[in-house]
Amino acid sequence: MSVDLVDRLRLVRSPGIGPVTYRQLIARFGSASAALEAVPDLAARGGGKAPRLVNRGDAEREIARIEALGARYLVLGQGLYPRALAELDDAPPLLTVKGDVRLLDKPLVAIVGARNASAAACRFARQLGYDLGQQGAVVVSGLARGIDSAAHDGSLETGTIGVVAGGLDIFYPPENESRQKAMFERSLVIAEMPPGTEPRARHFPYRNRIIAGLTAGTVVVEAAPKSGSLITARLAAEAGREVMAVPGSPLDPRAQGCNQLIRQGATLVQNAHDVLEAVRPLQPRFASPHSPYDPGESQWMDGDAGALGIVEELLGPSPVPVDEIIRLSGVPSGAVQMALLELDLAGRLDRHAGGKVSIRPA
Amino acid sequence: MSVDLVDRLRLVRSPGIGPVTYRQLIARFGSASAALEAVPDLAARGGGKAPRLVNRGDAEREIARIEALGARYLVLGQGLYPRALAELDDAPPLLTVKGDVRLLDKPLVAIVGARNASAAACRFARQLGYDLGQQGAVVVSGLARGIDSAAHDGSLETGTIGVVAGGLDIFYPPENESRQKAMFERSLVIAEMPPGTEPRARHFPYRNRIIAGLTAGTVVVEAAPKSGSLITARLAAEAGREVMAVPGSPLDPRAQGCNQLIRQGATLVQNAHDVLEAVRPLQPRFASPHSPYDPGESQWMDGDAGALGIVEELLGPSPVPVDEIIRLSGVPSGAVQMALLELDLAGRLDRHAGGKVSIRPA
Repeated sequence: MSVDLVDRLRLVRSPGIGPVTYRQLIARFGSASAALEAVPDLAARGGGKAPRLVNRGDAEREIARIEALGARYLVLGQGLYPRALAELDDAPPLLTVKGDVRLLDKPLVAIVGARNASAAACRFARQLGYDLGQQGAVVVSGLARGIDSAAHDGSLETGTIGVVAGGLDIFYPPENESRQKAMFERSLVIAEMPPGTEPRARHFPYRNRIIAGLTAGTVVVEAAPKSGSLITARLAAEAGREVMAVPGSPLDPRAQGCNQLIRQGATLVQNAHDVLEAVRPLQPRFASPHSPYDPGESQWMDGDAGALGIVEELLGPSPVPVDEIIRLSGVPSGAVQMALLELDLAGRLDRHAGGKVSIRPA
Repeated sequence: MSVDLVDRLRLVRSPGIGPVTYRQLIARFGSASAALEAVPDLAARGGGKAPRLVNRGDAEREIARIEALGARYLVLGQGLYPRALAELDDAPPLLTVKGDVRLLDKPLVAIVGARNASAAACRFARQLGYDLGQQGAVVVSGLARGIDSAAHDGSLETGTIGVVAGGLDIFYPPENESRQKAMFERSLVIAEMPPGTEPRARHFPYRNRIIAGLTAGTVVVEAAPKSGSLITARLAAEAGREVMAVPGSPLDPRAQGCNQLIRQGATLVQNAHDVLEAVRPLQPRFASPHSPYDPGESQWMDGDAGALGIVEELLGPSPVPVDEIIRLSGVPSGAVQMALLELDLAGRLDRHAGGKVSIRPA
């Protein structure tokens, strides 16, 4: 059992340390163990109580449980961790995976859609999954009812990747048990949450960012306005991936989400050929999954009470971009980042989409 | 009976004088009567037999027939002739119209589609026509079976414009007689061909250019690949108008033409709101139908045998742009245009889309 993995797991599983905070701690301190040691002081400087860190024993017990499941971890920035996913600012620091990890090397395309989709749309998703598999692509989806399940079923023989919202060993919805077990054997299942976690509403958007982030593009098949599938599409667009949608008649209420997406600029796709044509330009970017993602050198500077005060004054309850704080503060960006990290670990900062931050109301 | 109208009609109805040739003759000679006088000489210089010009009596008889029908002429560049249509290089020199010409002042939108459209698509087209009418727009279509008829029916109460391929007094298909007569009374019908003309296959693309040219945008509802509706869409795009299409499921073969259009850049529309939003930016361009279109001053030069010889040598059986002939010839553009006009009237030139010309094989 790698000491580094235990320490990373302790950080990741500690409440109050999200993916962005984790990444900044590793970038600043170079290792998980150094970050663990630094957290109490940083939080104190930020003016709050330190997060309760997960202890070594709990982390070791989770690792043993993952091994007992026949699963393993993928670590951000190391080994097989997918390069495309590592590009996200809030990439999951650790993934648990069970199945054939070589599938991560292939061109990955997401297919998502409504749980209560029409029979015709499910048949379409299944055929699209099959055709993409025949063309050498791997379908990524969320193992939900409806479109997700159909897309997995169509591509199971050639390989498909399911990303679950809860733990790897939880079958949700329950009727998915046989499908998920088949995918353990013949494909791949990925979870960000620890084993045993029952999925809750807040977990689904996290799961969706993984589906969007793993893939060169996301195809939406039948989605209601304001549905989770449209969130996945938005996340894909924000990550610079291709967003594709299958159109339908304006007379069909279930087509409205997809038609709206196309009006907003998504590519209309009718078949696997259209999908592969759309994602081809993005493939080379993710083509070397084995060269680990390099988060780059950050110019971190040690904490400075002056900078912290300035940053605190610039923050309010409305989210503002970190870049703006840096510009307005007149303080070197490394010192601003450190001040934000201190406030974050003190439980006084909220991080939002698009690199924005706000101060948490007292 | 205006002498000028008689002379224009003599030119327009003469075989071998198409809309582009007509426009150039008027631009060069200033009036139809001067052009009529010049044609024999021009043709002789071009090395061919002059077109057989329609005689005064035949023209007067057509005018009497149009008056008896309760119809009238609109003359390119004069009075109520629609400004948007006048923008086309091959705008019809004369239109015959029966009905409420004030409809031409309103925002015009084309709705076109398959003759054998599904019942659902016809219902959709009818509703779209109705809704556009309620919003103050006028629907233009081709009085064909299927989508065209449905779009007219939906907008008849608020005003709709039918463009027929044959003469104004011909009902095609025959079951359209009552619809067309209702449009004479409560809307407007337009024909480019003389009364009594039975529509033939070659007339339909001419009719389609009028539908595309009159309107700020064309909405395609259910169209087969390679159908006339897609020709109208292409003509609209070439004229710088908005192309819109109503999507459908990839599982529905009748949706393929529209889905393909959207993939090629047409705007996906689901209702009247989407349509009006798309065409709004184009409206101001056509907003003053009463200020006649000014074709601009051309620098015409009189015929010059040297220029004619050079132009003849540069022409071949494959269409080439007139601009290229001008550039390669080293001759002033006015002299090239005159040489082309002479060859044209001599029956030795073919004019093609996009301002291209070729020499007619002997």
